[in-house]
Amino acid sequence: MSFSLHEKEDTIIALATPQGVGAIAVIRLSGKDAIKITNEVFKGKDLEKQPSHTIHFGTIRDGERIIDEVLVSLFIAPKSFTKENVVEISTHGSSYIVNQVIKLLIRHGARPAKPGEFTQRAFLNGQFDLAQAEAVADLIHSDSEASHQAAMNQMRGGFSGEISKLRAELIHFASMIELELDFTEEDVEFASRDDLRILVEQLLRVIEQLIASFDLGNVIKNGMPTVIAGKPNAGKSTLLNALLNEEKAIVSDIAGTTRDFIEDEINIGGVIFRFIDTAGLRETTDTIEAIGVSRTQEKMKTASLILYLFDLTDTDMVEINRDINKLENLGVPFVKVGNKIDRANPQFINELKSRHPDIIFISAGKKENLDALRQRILEMVNLDKFRTGNTIVTNIRHYDSLVKTRQSLLDVLTGLDALVTNDFLAMDIRRSLHYLGEITGEITTDDLLANIFSKFCIGK
Amino acid sequence: MSFSLHEKEDTIIALATPQGVGAIAVIRLSGKDAIKITNEVFKGKDLEKQPSHTIHFGTIRDGERIIDEVLVSLFIAPKSFTKENVVEISTHGSSYIVNQVIKLLIRHGARPAKPGEFTQRAFLNGQFDLAQAEAVADLIHSDSEASHQAAMNQMRGGFSGEISKLRAELIHFASMIELELDFTEEDVEFASRDDLRILVEQLLRVIEQLIASFDLGNVIKNGMPTVIAGKPNAGKSTLLNALLNEEKAIVSDIAGTTRDFIEDEINIGGVIFRFIDTAGLRETTDTIEAIGVSRTQEKMKTASLILYLFDLTDTDMVEINRDINKLENLGVPFVKVGNKIDRANPQFINELKSRHPDIIFISAGKKENLDALRQRILEMVNLDKFRTGNTIVTNIRHYDSLVKTRQSLLDVLTGLDALVTNDFLAMDIRRSLHYLGEITGEITTDDLLANIFSKFCIGK
Repeated sequence: MSFSLHEKEDTIIALATPQGVGAIAVIRLSGKDAIKITNEVFKGKDLEKQPSHTIHFGTIRDGERIIDEVLVSLFIAPKSFTKENVVEISTHGSSYIVNQVIKLLIRHGARPAKPGEFTQRAFLNGQFDLAQAEAVADLIHSDSEASHQAAMNQMRGGFSGEISKLRAELIHFASMIELELDFTEEDVEFASRDDLRILVEQLLRVIEQLIASFDLGNVIKNGMPTVIAGKPNAGKSTLLNALLNEEKAIVSDIAGTTRDFIEDEINIGGVIFRFIDTAGLRETTDTIEAIGVSRTQEKMKTASLILYLFDLTDTDMVEINRDINKLENLGVPFVKVGNKIDRANPQFINELKSRHPDIIFISAGKKENLDALRQRILEMVNLDKFRTGNTIVTNIRHYDSLVKTRQSLLDVLTGLDALVTNDFLAMDIRRSLHYLGEITGEITTDDLLANIFSKFCIGK
Repeated sequence: MSFSLHEKEDTIIALATPQGVGAIAVIRLSGKDAIKITNEVFKGKDLEKQPSHTIHFGTIRDGERIIDEVLVSLFIAPKSFTKENVVEISTHGSSYIVNQVIKLLIRHGARPAKPGEFTQRAFLNGQFDLAQAEAVADLIHSDSEASHQAAMNQMRGGFSGEISKLRAELIHFASMIELELDFTEEDVEFASRDDLRILVEQLLRVIEQLIASFDLGNVIKNGMPTVIAGKPNAGKSTLLNALLNEEKAIVSDIAGTTRDFIEDEINIGGVIFRFIDTAGLRETTDTIEAIGVSRTQEKMKTASLILYLFDLTDTDMVEINRDINKLENLGVPFVKVGNKIDRANPQFINELKSRHPDIIFISAGKKENLDALRQRILEMVNLDKFRTGNTIVTNIRHYDSLVKTRQSLLDVLTGLDALVTNDFLAMDIRRSLHYLGEITGEITTDDLLANIFSKFCIGK
């Protein structure tokens, strides 16, 4: 998907609200002729004579036939989302009406918008940078406090600001070094190599931090892949169902606004925990027993968190020690959970407590002590960074660019050590600038844009 | 569901757009404090100082935490849908955000709206009458040109106007006759009994017409129940699939706006034909053969239209005549369709044409002549009344009230014939007025309102 100049000047149209039955639907137009085209089918006030940010009641008509009574909202360029003329038509929420209105406006000169085309225009017209545009999509798909907050920070420019600052400093050095190229015979040094080294090392520290934040960012955006491991009768599916049901009860409190409930995803303290391979889990596969088998081991390694669940009435100390030992060798963070506390031998509990003071004792069946378990699970995610407002990378495209930037910066350092010529040094710095620029969209290609915006929904 | 005075003064809130992922979602508040409550969580302009029908950009904040960047539309009473203060908040289309914003506004004093409560308030505040309010729901669920047009006519007051005019004339007579009751000893006659009879007979004609229109109205609203009848290999499922596929191809032309496609419903010329028992049909049950069986006969009688389909290469004249004879006795309108014209004997075709000039010859497999079939099917629905703008009753509640009105008016006529006393006459007229008033909501009970509005979706 690449846009010709002509395409960029079209007036585009799409349904902006979800498909389905609702009280209202909103159809959005953007482009030079958005108001003019709407005015041709609107009976009410003359829309071309109204000020921006006003709402007008009237009817949409196909000749004499009334398609609907509507409210039309006007946003006159550049005071709109896309910085173009934008019209939002609020119709009754019938897909028949929406279809009729869109078809009518297409006959009058609008064309159907491509996925993400409204946001793309907003980006191209300088409403925001690329990372912010991507955050709009993340925001729409955010389903937890953490993912919402990360997307909101990014949309409001937190991440972009950090990247732009780094880039501006580096541009200064690049210019100086390139200036030196014009005076090669005079042996001047506009850019101190020591200062450059200090700056690059500073940049590397920040970029390492951003790269490191992606682990957390990924968890925030996609959920924390979690496995409940335990013997067939340890109560794995009972525990998962208990956690899911308690959440369902909390979530579905406002009629008409319940979120899509995803099986096997649990929101704990604003973070989504995604229980993987829970289908197999429900068939009570014995994952622990099979840790020695490499295939199972691989699967458990893909988890970011393991809940090691054992039946307090049916597991002895030797077995527990052996399992915990295996898990420690696996290297994935895990929580030790003793189940069926209501029926366990008190003496055995005491013995366990002294040996493993970090065991959480629960009864999945009786829903006892699940709050303590949730608390511990949440502690396993290092949310502190996030809470203190540090920038978190959540987008794999940004992660890739950051990794490439790191490599280029390391090349600059190597070049400095090896005393390479200025033109090589300048090239490595330019490469770093390029990758940083890709994140915010200061450097773009049609392919890159097409790839990003085609993932948006139509209407955004 | 009945509303106390206090409940009617609450500020209500609900999502007005469908659930699911879209570019935007619209949350609607209505009530005295709608603007004040929104203003408490909105950072931007002071909403309480802005004029009606204006739009304002800003953020919704829970304390310091930004929930979203939004556009707020203001409608100041009485210039709104409900005639109360109305606020529409356009957020990013994430169900997480929608939930957060609604919860926040509830904490600030709004309460979740009940189903249809916005429309109910519009009705109670005199925005429109009851039949018009009901048309709003019909409009949202309309899925064809005919159902859309009927709902639009009704919403814009065509039906209500007719009923109100009848009612006003009758009220005049009721008053006159009741006035006579005050002068019983003086033997005056304010209301001419002959004029009353003429009016009641006039009314009855109009009401009979409205009642008769319900057959068509029901077809328009719910689709025309249609059966394809024929022997196992006549090509019934091939025909149905050919009609369905051609429609699918027509319908799905604008990306992102395709309507929900309902299996076994076909839109022909703006009318929905609902093919009944098509599951059975696909198992090629021989419905014609089984017409003698009373159960099958009952099922075919529930259809409003039968397509009698026979295989031209495999049915002789005797069989066709016998089937047509059976169908004529059944009393349901039917279309004669000869299938496999591409392989039929031309001489047999000519013979058939002379005997049954109204047969449509098609090839379902090769999609030949399907347009002619569609044309004929559409002719079977008497759309002329509808097209000429006559009022069509589509609502079963209105139909019931009209039937009761008819009975009361007939009682008035009987009373006139029997020279009953004025108080009995007045009572029958009042009863007619009551039933007519129920349609437009001049007469309502809490139960009636509850029953009507509880069927609305939340947010409308």
